[in-house]
Amino acid sequence: MAVPALSVKEMETYLRREFPQVFNDDSGLTIVDITAQGCRVAQAFRPEFVRPGGTVSGPTMMALADFAMYVAILAAIGPVALAVTTNLNINFLRKPAQAGLIADVRLLKLGKRLAVGEVVLYSEGEDEPVAHVTSTYSIPPRP
Amino acid sequence: MAVPALSVKEMETYLRREFPQVFNDDSGLTIVDITAQGCRVAQAFRPEFVRPGGTVSGPTMMALADFAMYVAILAAIGPVALAVTTNLNINFLRKPAQAGLIADVRLLKLGKRLAVGEVVLYSEGEDEPVAHVTSTYSIPPRP
Amino acid sequence: MAVPALSVKEMETYLRREFPQVFNDDSGLTIVDITAQGCRVAQAFRPEFVRPGGTVSGPTMMALADFAMYVAILAAIGPVALAVTTNLNINFLRKPAQAGLIADVRLLKLGKRLAVGEVVLYSEGEDEPVAHVTSTYSIPPRP
Amino acid sequence: MAVPALSVKEMETYLRREFPQVFNDDSGLTIVDITAQGCRVAQAFRPEFVRPGGTVSGPTMMALADFAMYVAILAAIGPVALAVTTNLNINFLRKPAQAGLIADVRLLKLGKRLAVGEVVLYSEGEDEPVAHVTSTYSIPPRP
Repeated sequence: MAVPALSVKEMETYLRREFPQVFNDDSGLTIVDITAQGCRVAQAFRPEFVRPGGTVSGPTMMALADFAMYVAILAAIGPVALAVTTNLNINFLRKPAQAGLIADVRLLKLGKRLAVGEVVLYSEGEDEPVAHVTSTYSIPPRP
Repeated sequence: MAVPALSVKEMETYLRREFPQVFNDDSGLTIVDITAQGCRVAQAFRPEFVRPGGTVSGPTMMALADFAMYVAILAAIGPVALAVTTNLNINFLRKPAQAGLIADVRLLKLGKRLAVGEVVLYSEGEDEPVAHVTSTYSIPPRP
Repeated sequence: MAVPALSVKEMETYLRREFPQVFNDDSGLTIVDITAQGCRVAQAFRPEFVRPGGTVSGPTMMALADFAMYVAILAAIGPVALAVTTNLNINFLRKPAQAGLIADVRLLKLGKRLAVGEVVLYSEGEDEPVAHVTSTYSIPPRP
Repeated sequence: MAVPALSVKEMETYLRREFPQVFNDDSGLTIVDITAQGCRVAQAFRPEFVRPGGTVSGPTMMALADFAMYVAILAAIGPVALAVTTNLNINFLRKPAQAGLIADVRLLKLGKRLAVGEVVLYSEGEDEPVAHVTSTYSIPPRP
């Protein structure tokens, strides 16, 4: 896993083509950085994310974590469009600000059949994480 | 927990008022049934739920499970608008059909401070679950 | 999955031979029942399970759930000694009595590469579960 | 959380007194380090931990993670003997060596009612984690 399989630019091009419902000019998603062990993804704030009590919705955070994991796996093993989430566990830690979100992914394991990663979510500008996720993806057998 | 605190009609009225971003005429969400131990919620199919490979997105399923848990807790203890998800664990079992989703919630525990529930998700018309969720909600101290 | 691959008697014989550190005359473990969809396993009470506050230890419950899952998978697909746990999620619901434990396993999915099950744990003689587990096992490629 | 509530020595004294079934001269457990954000605990190898295939058992790892979390919480908030695990999620990443285990705990959140931590488990001498755990403890109302 010494070098990512895709650069940020290649990743964005791939996602626009293969995942346009999620990654497009209006999504507010940015691939901030890609490393050999993971990635950083940002989600810009959208008023529709807000829930009663002024918090950003749990599903907004779960969707971002799931997307960021997918990016990290693609970055590590190359375009594998059929890698699918098998498990996701999220702990909500603090009420997010009405601000954008940052997702930092670290891959814990990259096996032949399963990948496991950790995603730490932050409100933009805040130091303490708002949520912590671990997730497992199933990697289809490579031809 | 012998009788739900809200009927289906009261639940819908409450949700339209307190949760309009999620529960409204366009959301495709229906409260199918409420019992003392849980509830059944349906989410109508929307093309924007579909992902590459023809599956319904993981986040769609996570959002439905989280919403259904909230409904079940409200039904059991009455309008507590600040009950918040602290943990959610989802196992994706089978690829969903391009169809609506059903969420069956069963409350496993309803304590003074925490509620734990199980949510089984089905594609409309199918017998085998597409996903299984357990989730914990924190219940704020009641005045 | 119409018929279990092993009967209770065959399961006990297999476990004594392949898993003697866990299943032996002193373990207090009993295979109560095996069905096509799961199994029931009982763990007799042992004073060493007790923790401060008079509860049965969390690790005792986790170990029983993990063992019961293994039994259920074996029962469904036959002796596959190298099936290994990849994920386990446990919610502790109620303080157990100082009594034996019952584990009821229901397999949610039995795929070629992964099996997912649900384990509900009870204190012997009590109706309300003390813990709820979901767990994923990796199934090695069959020769 | 600037300074731990207990030093290593105070922690060991407390555990021997309050938790003797788990922490005693024969347990092979060592409190290696305590910081404001967590702790490091070591479990010496014992042959009875080994399972078919030469691995260290999942329950051994789950028990160590649960114990290490308890130590980290005690270290942060002082002797609260009735703090109890409400949720534990473990991902098994790599087959452990037949060696001792190290558990590194980092507290992610320390609230009034809930504490959430992350535990990374290693085989002694190895760089890559063998398992990753997140766990939630319920903190009883302090008098």
